[in-house]
Amino acid sequence: VASAFSPPLAISLGDPAGIGPEVLAKCWDNRASFDLPPFVAIGDPRSIDAVWDGPIEVIDDPGQADSAFDVGLPLIQLPAAAADIPGHPSTEGAHCSLVSLELAVGLARSGSAAAVVTGPVSKEQLYGIGFAHPGQTEFVAERCGVASANVAMMLAGPTLRTVPVTTHLPLGAVPGELNSALIESRGRAVLRGLQRTFGIADPRLAVAGLNPHAGESGALSSEEIEIIEPAIAALRSEGWRVTGPHPADTLFHASARANYDAALCMYHDQALIPVKALHFEEAVNVTLGLPIVRTAPDHGTAFDIAGQDRADPRPMAAAIRMAAKCAAFRFEAV
Amino acid sequence: VASAFSPPLAISLGDPAGIGPEVLAKCWDNRASFDLPPFVAIGDPRSIDAVWDGPIEVIDDPGQADSAFDVGLPLIQLPAAAADIPGHPSTEGAHCSLVSLELAVGLARSGSAAAVVTGPVSKEQLYGIGFAHPGQTEFVAERCGVASANVAMMLAGPTLRTVPVTTHLPLGAVPGELNSALIESRGRAVLRGLQRTFGIADPRLAVAGLNPHAGESGALSSEEIEIIEPAIAALRSEGWRVTGPHPADTLFHASARANYDAALCMYHDQALIPVKALHFEEAVNVTLGLPIVRTAPDHGTAFDIAGQDRADPRPMAAAIRMAAKCAAFRFEAV
Repeated sequence: VASAFSPPLAISLGDPAGIGPEVLAKCWDNRASFDLPPFVAIGDPRSIDAVWDGPIEVIDDPGQADSAFDVGLPLIQLPAAAADIPGHPSTEGAHCSLVSLELAVGLARSGSAAAVVTGPVSKEQLYGIGFAHPGQTEFVAERCGVASANVAMMLAGPTLRTVPVTTHLPLGAVPGELNSALIESRGRAVLRGLQRTFGIADPRLAVAGLNPHAGESGALSSEEIEIIEPAIAALRSEGWRVTGPHPADTLFHASARANYDAALCMYHDQALIPVKALHFEEAVNVTLGLPIVRTAPDHGTAFDIAGQDRADPRPMAAAIRMAAKCAAFRFEAV
Repeated sequence: VASAFSPPLAISLGDPAGIGPEVLAKCWDNRASFDLPPFVAIGDPRSIDAVWDGPIEVIDDPGQADSAFDVGLPLIQLPAAAADIPGHPSTEGAHCSLVSLELAVGLARSGSAAAVVTGPVSKEQLYGIGFAHPGQTEFVAERCGVASANVAMMLAGPTLRTVPVTTHLPLGAVPGELNSALIESRGRAVLRGLQRTFGIADPRLAVAGLNPHAGESGALSSEEIEIIEPAIAALRSEGWRVTGPHPADTLFHASARANYDAALCMYHDQALIPVKALHFEEAVNVTLGLPIVRTAPDHGTAFDIAGQDRADPRPMAAAIRMAAKCAAFRFEAV
């Protein structure tokens, strides 16, 4: 993983009343068996104290994380406000999650952190304090000076990586939102991301169809012919290795997966169903198209189980490992 | 599996120019390692001879299949027409596939066969000879005197069974086709099918949402609240164990699958993506709602590889084993 001379990973704790603090503390506890590199948490230490009795090493500078990591969970402390109660989100907690995110991104941008891993936030709580982005990804993109249209959300597991072209839309609105330019730009972001962030020199992209059996050559529906095929042709003309449109139902078994490095999917569930069916505890969100490496565990705040010692730390551990691996590719590429 | 005194399974060979004859012959070759009960093929023996040099035992009556099965592949011969050439579908082949299907269904209806397994046909070829049903399933339903609205197509693998409410529709047409009555009747067909065909006394049905995150409680879209929830409530009021609507992306990992016996999905790929991702070589189509047991391997004629000894017999073997298992439940239930 990252060498001893690399900066640590910066991890925003997310909402202090969610399971973010608990899963990160469990990651530190299991850092050896989970094979985790040094990281520094950013947030309110009381949110960890409330759910964990292990040692916290408050530090001022990410450069101290490496030596502190053997002693306790390194943490950069945010200005304290009211007490955090697990499972009970508050306005102050929402502010804390936002400041934590902002600081983590800043550390990665400045090179003081190798990558950012973001803990789960509550969008509802963030909207309540005036947060104007759809989610953390768009906020991170803005802070990095990248238009959110040019980033792509990848869900990556050990044997499958997928990227949805459209995300949180009603299913019926998907066909109307799709167009060749959008598929083309997402496809390009994924292909470049596979190069820069995953170290794949000549990546292979499989593009899924929208309709059952990829529209049956136009007999069932025409989006494949009118929208998807031109986007594939455009990407191919740039020299990229792109195939499709493939029927989605036969795109995700083992021998099909062997033919591509990522699958570009037309809608949210087409992308997420197969990765989560195959790799639920190891699926990691990776934001492609940013100047920094950013990953996240693929779960929410889970307020309903926060503070009950029931949260599974494996998705956070997978996100940390993935961030370290991708950061190493970036540094090699430089 | 089926006892020595049960009638054999009747297997229609499907289109003689497709891979049906080859995969069935390979099944007979591997009948011991695949753990297959006695079966009788129905079709033109030349379509098997063209791709296989093993012994065929032509019989007149399914009752002879049991003793013939040790000697060769038992087959009830259809009136011969022109020669079959693998990979080259013909009008005569289409007629043959239809007569084969009709005879297999008739044998099961009369009790001379324990169940029907249908080999792959070419819909295009069948439409060319005036076939007026969307597919084999609707034909079988009609021959059994069941309205096709009351049958349900299940895709079943070792750890996951799914049923789509809508099937071969353009994705954009799915929301408009969904209504509570349809979901309710499909759900009821699945629940009764789990009882009759899978021997599950008090089956559990999980119903998927249509939209990402099951519509986010109405914030994203309202089909879950307006269409799906009333259907679930109606089924529950009849005493069935039904949950949902569940976000589809988190419905198919191992611990989620432990909570239900079948998942009712809103559209084709929502149902088929997870089963095929997890169980590609073992996914079997099971038609629920019929007075007979009918299964089918989940693949097509594959004309492009017919006659090249490349076809994988495992899906046909899985369909045969599943038919035998379901037939045994039926006989027990009687």
